Amino acid sequence: MNIDSITSTLLQLDVELPSWAFGNSGTRFKVFAQPGVPRTPYEKIDDAAQVHRYTGSAPSVALHIPWDKVEDYAELRRHAEQRGVRLGTINANVFQDDDYRLGSVTNPDPLIRKKAVAHLLDCIDVMDQTGSRDLKLWFSDGTNYPGQDNIRARQDRLAEALHAVYARLGDDQRLILEYKLFEPAFYTMDVPDWGTSFAHCLELGERAKVCVDTGHHAPGTNIEFIVAFLLRAGKLGAFDFNSRFYADDDLMVGSADPFQLFRILHEVSQGDGFDPRTEVAFMLDQCHNIEPKIPGQIRSVMNVQEAAAKALLVDTDALQRMQNAGDVLGANAVLMDAYNTDVRPMLAEHRRNLGLDPDPMAAYAASGYAQQIVAERVGGSPAGWGA
Amino acid sequence: MNIDSITSTLLQLDVELPSWAFGNSGTRFKVFAQPGVPRTPYEKIDDAAQVHRYTGSAPSVALHIPWDKVEDYAELRRHAEQRGVRLGTINANVFQDDDYRLGSVTNPDPLIRKKAVAHLLDCIDVMDQTGSRDLKLWFSDGTNYPGQDNIRARQDRLAEALHAVYARLGDDQRLILEYKLFEPAFYTMDVPDWGTSFAHCLELGERAKVCVDTGHHAPGTNIEFIVAFLLRAGKLGAFDFNSRFYADDDLMVGSADPFQLFRILHEVSQGDGFDPRTEVAFMLDQCHNIEPKIPGQIRSVMNVQEAAAKALLVDTDALQRMQNAGDVLGANAVLMDAYNTDVRPMLAEHRRNLGLDPDPMAAYAASGYAQQIVAERVGGSPAGWGA
Amino acid sequence: MNIDSITSTLLQLDVELPSWAFGNSGTRFKVFAQPGVPRTPYEKIDDAAQVHRYTGSAPSVALHIPWDKVEDYAELRRHAEQRGVRLGTINANVFQDDDYRLGSVTNPDPLIRKKAVAHLLDCIDVMDQTGSRDLKLWFSDGTNYPGQDNIRARQDRLAEALHAVYARLGDDQRLILEYKLFEPAFYTMDVPDWGTSFAHCLELGERAKVCVDTGHHAPGTNIEFIVAFLLRAGKLGAFDFNSRFYADDDLMVGSADPFQLFRILHEVSQGDGFDPRTEVAFMLDQCHNIEPKIPGQIRSVMNVQEAAAKALLVDTDALQRMQNAGDVLGANAVLMDAYNTDVRPMLAEHRRNLGLDPDPMAAYAASGYAQQIVAERVGGSPAGWGA
Amino acid sequence: MNIDSITSTLLQLDVELPSWAFGNSGTRFKVFAQPGVPRTPYEKIDDAAQVHRYTGSAPSVALHIPWDKVEDYAELRRHAEQRGVRLGTINANVFQDDDYRLGSVTNPDPLIRKKAVAHLLDCIDVMDQTGSRDLKLWFSDGTNYPGQDNIRARQDRLAEALHAVYARLGDDQRLILEYKLFEPAFYTMDVPDWGTSFAHCLELGERAKVCVDTGHHAPGTNIEFIVAFLLRAGKLGAFDFNSRFYADDDLMVGSADPFQLFRILHEVSQGDGFDPRTEVAFMLDQCHNIEPKIPGQIRSVMNVQEAAAKALLVDTDALQRMQNAGDVLGANAVLMDAYNTDVRPMLAEHRRNLGLDPDPMAAYAASGYAQQIVAERVGGSPAGWGA
Repeated sequence: MNIDSITSTLLQLDVELPSWAFGNSGTRFKVFAQPGVPRTPYEKIDDAAQVHRYTGSAPSVALHIPWDKVEDYAELRRHAEQRGVRLGTINANVFQDDDYRLGSVTNPDPLIRKKAVAHLLDCIDVMDQTGSRDLKLWFSDGTNYPGQDNIRARQDRLAEALHAVYARLGDDQRLILEYKLFEPAFYTMDVPDWGTSFAHCLELGERAKVCVDTGHHAPGTNIEFIVAFLLRAGKLGAFDFNSRFYADDDLMVGSADPFQLFRILHEVSQGDGFDPRTEVAFMLDQCHNIEPKIPGQIRSVMNVQEAAAKALLVDTDALQRMQNAGDVLGANAVLMDAYNTDVRPMLAEHRRNLGLDPDPMAAYAASGYAQQIVAERVGGSPAGWGA
Repeated sequence: MNIDSITSTLLQLDVELPSWAFGNSGTRFKVFAQPGVPRTPYEKIDDAAQVHRYTGSAPSVALHIPWDKVEDYAELRRHAEQRGVRLGTINANVFQDDDYRLGSVTNPDPLIRKKAVAHLLDCIDVMDQTGSRDLKLWFSDGTNYPGQDNIRARQDRLAEALHAVYARLGDDQRLILEYKLFEPAFYTMDVPDWGTSFAHCLELGERAKVCVDTGHHAPGTNIEFIVAFLLRAGKLGAFDFNSRFYADDDLMVGSADPFQLFRILHEVSQGDGFDPRTEVAFMLDQCHNIEPKIPGQIRSVMNVQEAAAKALLVDTDALQRMQNAGDVLGANAVLMDAYNTDVRPMLAEHRRNLGLDPDPMAAYAASGYAQQIVAERVGGSPAGWGA
Repeated sequence: MNIDSITSTLLQLDVELPSWAFGNSGTRFKVFAQPGVPRTPYEKIDDAAQVHRYTGSAPSVALHIPWDKVEDYAELRRHAEQRGVRLGTINANVFQDDDYRLGSVTNPDPLIRKKAVAHLLDCIDVMDQTGSRDLKLWFSDGTNYPGQDNIRARQDRLAEALHAVYARLGDDQRLILEYKLFEPAFYTMDVPDWGTSFAHCLELGERAKVCVDTGHHAPGTNIEFIVAFLLRAGKLGAFDFNSRFYADDDLMVGSADPFQLFRILHEVSQGDGFDPRTEVAFMLDQCHNIEPKIPGQIRSVMNVQEAAAKALLVDTDALQRMQNAGDVLGANAVLMDAYNTDVRPMLAEHRRNLGLDPDPMAAYAASGYAQQIVAERVGGSPAGWGA
Repeated sequence: MNIDSITSTLLQLDVELPSWAFGNSGTRFKVFAQPGVPRTPYEKIDDAAQVHRYTGSAPSVALHIPWDKVEDYAELRRHAEQRGVRLGTINANVFQDDDYRLGSVTNPDPLIRKKAVAHLLDCIDVMDQTGSRDLKLWFSDGTNYPGQDNIRARQDRLAEALHAVYARLGDDQRLILEYKLFEPAFYTMDVPDWGTSFAHCLELGERAKVCVDTGHHAPGTNIEFIVAFLLRAGKLGAFDFNSRFYADDDLMVGSADPFQLFRILHEVSQGDGFDPRTEVAFMLDQCHNIEPKIPGQIRSVMNVQEAAAKALLVDTDALQRMQNAGDVLGANAVLMDAYNTDVRPMLAEHRRNLGLDPDPMAAYAASGYAQQIVAERVGGSPAGWGA
């Protein structure tokens, strides 16, 4: 692809930010509180807008319900628009009530299942108000001990809940089903892998798609294979980007294995996933436990852009020629040539063309916003995973 | 389940033996040859028949084509019947010609793909002669380096080949598609996980089913979840049993994690998989690199029987009560109670009732067969993975 | 080993309980609070004493400082003695102050390091009062991102801190250094594996020993090898027992892979680790996130006893004969024969001989203690990991 | 580091080639033979000399005994010198005799141990003739089944063998002990991890050092931590470079995770490991199963050079400043800035300055050597892992 095509594709590459990345987060051992953290969904959006301001590529913010519950979503929507961003995916949260100790939609207790499904339907109500296209479902449901519950019965309950939710979706709304190998359930997760998510989505219908969270796989899993497979099947709905070294570390995307991110985006490119009509949502789903949150998000958006630019640089004609000729080293070299290119000058130029500072990190640091929020956000409860 | 029900279920539990377990095998570092190893498919069947003779539960032998190619399969079939066993699943082998360096049915070269598909169709011809129900397909196809070939195009080629094979199946024949995470291809396997196999089988139709090889998963994968899921979906066709500590070690089933084998068979039990009408094939797929082969197979069949007996001992009513009550420790205890039971006396009694020696290992050792084959099988080429 | 030897060895097998297992715990996603949870170290000891009351094998309680900080440790000690138990290992905690965001003893900031070391020395003061032999050090220290800090400099700082602590130990006190692959630091832990712990302990001297936490290894690690190696080197100080399927799940010991626990205890047996003179401390380090805590501990102690009984049942003479003869299947069979034995009747008998109820779980359930603490422990702050 | 310092360091960076990389290799499933493969150690050296000719950085060739056994090592040495290279590390091979089925130096049979040790001593005789500094020991020894042999006794036997070998070393010779998690033994390897190798080397003495093979670790292991640790301890003797996605895949170094290779070489740089006086041997240990061998080696040497150049580009002053300031994102950014730099122009210039073609791959391809060896090497037995 030539530079013009690359930059025009990059222009269309929107990375959605998670509102929860701006609040405090940590591990079960400790949440290290940071000063200046937002106390309300409104302030989270203010922070997210900063990321968009300096990158130009993060125009929407995903919400987590109930963490981002507000009285008036229309008002929140206007607030976002005033800040130059929009509200994006609605993430349902059915894992933080005491009721959900043994599961939400797969709980053996029908009353708890009912409550969980009701919450999911409420989330669609929120979507109607926020104008969101996507409902993202991640279930912490599973079991910790062999025998604890019936694996198959839990699948039946899951299917039933998904059907109820799917039936309630508007014509332009989608259900995005995320999978996760492990945590917080340790023996089985009820949606542990892409195959499970795919099978349920297939049964539900066209507007049900799979979400690939880059941190949710067993060691040794080839994630780009899954991406290519789902794109081929028309079932890739969204990415939750982040990095991991071992488990679901939720580090900044591209920080642990930048070559893997490149390979994933190469498959996106091969499968027309950068075309907005393919409707692949590119989202971050990260924590910034020890690093500052806004710069952590800016860096992450930049990492996605750099990996995407490299993926778009791949000489696909040459690649295909080498592949068809069975030239293993030649084909690999075409890919590596793109990966080894330093695309940062190209992206700096791209930003200049958009009227942005070529160095988003430096520009944000110079803006004084970080100091300002520390000074201003005094009192109140800093947002976190629990609120 | 009471003892009578358990033993009547065990009576129906047939474990198919792989002909290749009786030949020499090893790692890329070394194949340690053993004396007395069969030199022909006929002698492999002789050895397999010994396993059945002492366990009473291994009445069929899976063949690997071309390793077990013979002039006259009807004669081989009669030979098997004379030895008290029958010919079982036909395993296609499209990974040992030099042509297949870059793949068989997914090779970028259409001529090589054609050759590979022709071999698969030949295997169905063999099935017609051997009376086999199942064609088991495992593809070593994949790539070693990023970029080496187009992941999606390889899926297209795979789908095309599978359709051609499926179309050729007789009404009572099945296509069983195996998946494998890794090896011999290192970057991607073309059928790396159950999701991929499941998706292709779904597209093919009712007589295409998934084969779960217990050694073919990423670390941390919950295999029994997959088993439960596939049984629920009507897509579990077969097991390839073996054990692994790290990769595809092909150790004796039940030797690395006997509790896992029990959990798998508990899910089989929960999903009616022991009922012959469910048509789940239970096969061994193992190597005996350093231990003697016939006793290795006998011990493996016994391990399956013991795990099955324990799984059948689970008090499913009590289990369900505890599960429905949300009693985590109680439900787990019901499962563990069955697992912790020593079922060997029950199985010894079961064998006595069948007129077998209660101790198959000792009975085989006392038979002199091991000494006899060492003495008789002089000259010729010992069977191995290559021939 | 004959039954008498086994039971006399079991009599000496003391399993130390962690005070924190009785408080609330969970994952970063949610801590599900349980009713009746202790609010003070005194109440934790009350609960621990229940476990000892029904198992007869859990006579000591490990403390976590500052979670178990009290005004007067002598009083706590007397309280324990009145309840029939004693205070055991002191676990230092330098991971929950905001200061420790970038590490404690390995922090780049010398003042923070000083503070952390001061806490470790304080813990030895506590030991002097509690009469504890062992100081257990687990450091959450590490980095989340490549480049974040200098790996080697952190080792220098770690060594310096360990030397300071070791120098302060009394003649009968030991430093036990725990390692952990992962979490809460994601890129590097400063003591990630047994080799690192071993090397530091070697440098420190005779009273520095390694702690093997069964949940702290990379997938595929053979833990019993490490146990055998450390026993041979005289450097195995303690076990932290628990189970894991994927990461540091902290499930009940023996619940995920009972065969592994048996193999570990077989190596303990082979290396004379059950002999109290070898001074191997057997501790539980677990969470009970969704199951009740006291029964969770009782079951765990029983799991250790059952695995130990099986390990002691191994016919070591026969095993050695088979091993020396190179009889792979024979040697494995000797081990499996012990593992497959149902030792529960033997342990029930053992308990009866000690004047205990043969079924500790049922006896505790019947005691009414669970109901009593729910009724009595009203008000106050339930103990958890944070307090 | 400035460009001059970088290039002068690169000038000292010699990458040793493994003679066995030029022969045929594969998996247990199939060795795909390639035309033009060497038939003798002399021809392997001819091929290795080609790699040095085009990279200028591969001046020595490691031998594998007995694969590279010749009548007259002095002649082989002269042959190498005539080709512009020298003989390097001697790799002992005690894993391919039928005797070694249950181990070599750790075999329960003392006669087999004696034979194995004798071979190791013979290898030192070879070293005396080839002028090699290093004896590299990798043992395939281990067990496949729990109970198969006594883990501790095997350590005793290993220690005894190592002592015998170490005692025979000349003053300028070193023993380099490699570790490996897995394969060909599946249950335990006798030297499974760096800790085991380190402990034995410590006991042996100063001239015993650890070899880090980049493909020999459990998933999730932080290899650069081990490198930093061993450099700090003065015990890093050598690298065996290669890449792996899952197990010991032996792919081209830098092809699976180039960022990891960079991080490893960053730690080498931090620990003065590029200084020849530190005596770290940089070797390739790879297979080229499906790609051509000489270009595979050229590309690998280039990958090491590129990663080293990036590692040397790290602004270590800025890095240390950021680290000391606790600036997580800043420190990470310093590292990433070096990694993201395209160093290929610098390396091309470097080669031009040395009188080499700036594009080694193209230059080799244009040389006609590949065609020449196919034409000339007719008849004889192509070299492989077995000969």
